[in-house]
Amino acid sequence: MKNKDISFFFNPKSIAIVGASSVAGKLSHAIMNSLKDIGFQGDIYPVNPKYKTIDSMECHQSVSDIKEDVDLAILCIPASQVLGAMEDVARKKAKGAIIVSAGFKETGQEGAELEVRLKKITGETGIRIMGPNCLGVFDNIFKIDTFFVLRERVRRPQVGGLSILSQSGSFAGTIMDELSAEGLGVAKIVNYGNRVDVGETDCLEYLAEDKSTKVVGIYMESVDDGKRFIEAAKSCAQKKPVFAIKVGRHEAGMSAAKSHTGAIAGKYEIYSAAFKKAGIIEVKGYSEFLDACKVLSKQYPADGKRVLVVTDGGGMGASIADACNDFGLQVAEPSQEIKNTLASKLPPFCAVGNPIDLTGSVTDDDYVMAVKEAMAEYDAAIVMVLWGPPTLTDKLIGMLAGAAAELKKPVIICSPGGEYSRKRNRMFEEAGLPVFSSPEEAARAAAVLAKSSR
Amino acid sequence: MKNKDISFFFNPKSIAIVGASSVAGKLSHAIMNSLKDIGFQGDIYPVNPKYKTIDSMECHQSVSDIKEDVDLAILCIPASQVLGAMEDVARKKAKGAIIVSAGFKETGQEGAELEVRLKKITGETGIRIMGPNCLGVFDNIFKIDTFFVLRERVRRPQVGGLSILSQSGSFAGTIMDELSAEGLGVAKIVNYGNRVDVGETDCLEYLAEDKSTKVVGIYMESVDDGKRFIEAAKSCAQKKPVFAIKVGRHEAGMSAAKSHTGAIAGKYEIYSAAFKKAGIIEVKGYSEFLDACKVLSKQYPADGKRVLVVTDGGGMGASIADACNDFGLQVAEPSQEIKNTLASKLPPFCAVGNPIDLTGSVTDDDYVMAVKEAMAEYDAAIVMVLWGPPTLTDKLIGMLAGAAAELKKPVIICSPGGEYSRKRNRMFEEAGLPVFSSPEEAARAAAVLAKSSR
Repeated sequence: MKNKDISFFFNPKSIAIVGASSVAGKLSHAIMNSLKDIGFQGDIYPVNPKYKTIDSMECHQSVSDIKEDVDLAILCIPASQVLGAMEDVARKKAKGAIIVSAGFKETGQEGAELEVRLKKITGETGIRIMGPNCLGVFDNIFKIDTFFVLRERVRRPQVGGLSILSQSGSFAGTIMDELSAEGLGVAKIVNYGNRVDVGETDCLEYLAEDKSTKVVGIYMESVDDGKRFIEAAKSCAQKKPVFAIKVGRHEAGMSAAKSHTGAIAGKYEIYSAAFKKAGIIEVKGYSEFLDACKVLSKQYPADGKRVLVVTDGGGMGASIADACNDFGLQVAEPSQEIKNTLASKLPPFCAVGNPIDLTGSVTDDDYVMAVKEAMAEYDAAIVMVLWGPPTLTDKLIGMLAGAAAELKKPVIICSPGGEYSRKRNRMFEEAGLPVFSSPEEAARAAAVLAKSSR
Repeated sequence: MKNKDISFFFNPKSIAIVGASSVAGKLSHAIMNSLKDIGFQGDIYPVNPKYKTIDSMECHQSVSDIKEDVDLAILCIPASQVLGAMEDVARKKAKGAIIVSAGFKETGQEGAELEVRLKKITGETGIRIMGPNCLGVFDNIFKIDTFFVLRERVRRPQVGGLSILSQSGSFAGTIMDELSAEGLGVAKIVNYGNRVDVGETDCLEYLAEDKSTKVVGIYMESVDDGKRFIEAAKSCAQKKPVFAIKVGRHEAGMSAAKSHTGAIAGKYEIYSAAFKKAGIIEVKGYSEFLDACKVLSKQYPADGKRVLVVTDGGGMGASIADACNDFGLQVAEPSQEIKNTLASKLPPFCAVGNPIDLTGSVTDDDYVMAVKEAMAEYDAAIVMVLWGPPTLTDKLIGMLAGAAAELKKPVIICSPGGEYSRKRNRMFEEAGLPVFSSPEEAARAAAVLAKSSR
């Protein structure tokens, strides 16, 4: 019987690094550095028959050679040596292994056969396997980082409530780096690669119960166990927002002959329907995935799809209204009552509709007043700030963040432009408001929030 | 008879600033600074009965009071005084006027009546009017800048071949700032606001013949003269790419577009058909407009829609293939012949399909070889560089730019991620390659190029 509990992947007390090396550039060396850099508190046991010591730590001949208990083994050895090493790891009664090594199913028939034998080991011994061909686990809470990608090229994000599950290693690394550049906080990122055993379903069951995880994003190429996945997702989505992307929607990487058959085209529809059934918010591209990361980890949920647009540039405001409509949102006019209130408080040349156009004579106060007065009739606001008017000051940033906190409704900032705007966009982000640099991105993010409403 | 030649708006020998002031914060003061900053070489005549001198220049009581010839008058006075001033400008036989002042059709019936009378003046005297409620002309070649938006908030772009026509002032200012931050070169940006006279059709006729303009982008809320516009666009599009956005595609966007310049935005479908008829590339949002600016001003035209995707991250590559399919592009497999060539030159674990996945062991040379070998069967390439592999160096940037120049086919870079990637993205831009930070943007840009093929 396999161990159902996979928590030791996230908070192991001890880790054996199989194929450890002190040679810079080796994956195992990078992983040891990653563990050190994040501040892993448990014990690390280097394993490599070629060495007596590594970085002044004792180096073991094999995993079963280690005297103490081993929770987790990380394998960074050639594919051909993995089976032997896994038998050794199983003998040691380690709870699980992360097989970083590539050279399995992705390289052809021989590699696929190796995976069948790995599956057999996990079935017979109960040991859990993540990988092969994966980066493993980044856990910002329990301080474990098995990603071999170098910090100088792929930064690690700050601590936060977002957790990400990804079959693709390139996606996991890229989004990690992107999230850290965007200043977004992350709890865990998991990459399970070829997925002979542990996959999104096991991880989702774990994240559903994980208190540090407030939002879950999934990057899927395929699903491990459709029925179980829907159950796990349903149960997780009742507790926290879950969003997912299915890549390979068009099967474009396959040969032209295969690519346009009904059977394959239909495949995506099945995923889309399953996401819907499970209460998962479906996103359709890398950009929208990133939008979802931003809005869902920063914002109050929206109660519906009525969007208020407030701007100081009418022409650009019209673009937001267009984009909102494209994404199925409603940009309805405010009631006459609210129009009257706004008209009484704003200069006569402002347009009190939706968008509310505060024009180039706008002040900080106008923005905040307009959002506060009109918001009762809307589920979310997109506030487009064009910084041209010299009457606008940096105080507006804190004032809008304060208004959003008071209203307890999502307020999304859209602020396109160059250097001056981009600097202020970072200030908006620091004040906790999600910022988008184009009308389309802002509208798409508002649509993600609307989809997250119950 | 109106003067058909509007070239004096772009290269006036002399400009009268009506409502000139030395008070910082006044629009007229900002405009005088803009003209000075760009290095306007002609004569400037301040006009304001309240002053004898302004910034140590003689200040005139009225335009007709100026002894020398005046090509262009810029009016920055309250709407109520504009008619009187325009009669004075007409008496002086100036060729034209830019009416910056707001307070016309966009504010209601009274303002609309003022516009009728302005139309009468241009009809009766032949003088050409740009505006009212506009920023006027930014010309990087003839060095004229009548935009009152401050350079510290809205940067001016470098010299280049892109010219933009915009009814919306907020759009004109925002895209100007965005283009300068993106390092894109601009010839002219024109904002004609409420458009009582000069509009996109006149400007398009002018830009068709303008040697400095290589690409034209139009931001439209409504059209001035449908039939003439299609003729002008058709003739311009035969000489250089013309792309356009119609804002107010949906009802909400439409009412927003109407309220702020007072224009009546017509049915979107009619515009879309007219663009097609005229050979205009239609773009559908601010982001796509910006994509078009980038690819059309940096790239060779594509001959069709066959896209090659080359990446070192399979999972992310699949996202590009999905996005290409979403935008109607073809991501077909290369021929067996090319596959064989690629396979013979790449390590065995690489995937030689489309995408070509060079994997995490990629080198600079692999990228360049793959693009060069496969490109014969494609119209454009999207090269996704994920910088994780330590084997990739900054040399790759120049090498890919060199390959693109050699192939004379569009090569688009897609490089998502954080700080490390973003720095290299700027280097790619400097090397002349258009860069996009998400698969969707890169694919959308490739689709714009495909639409530009004849």
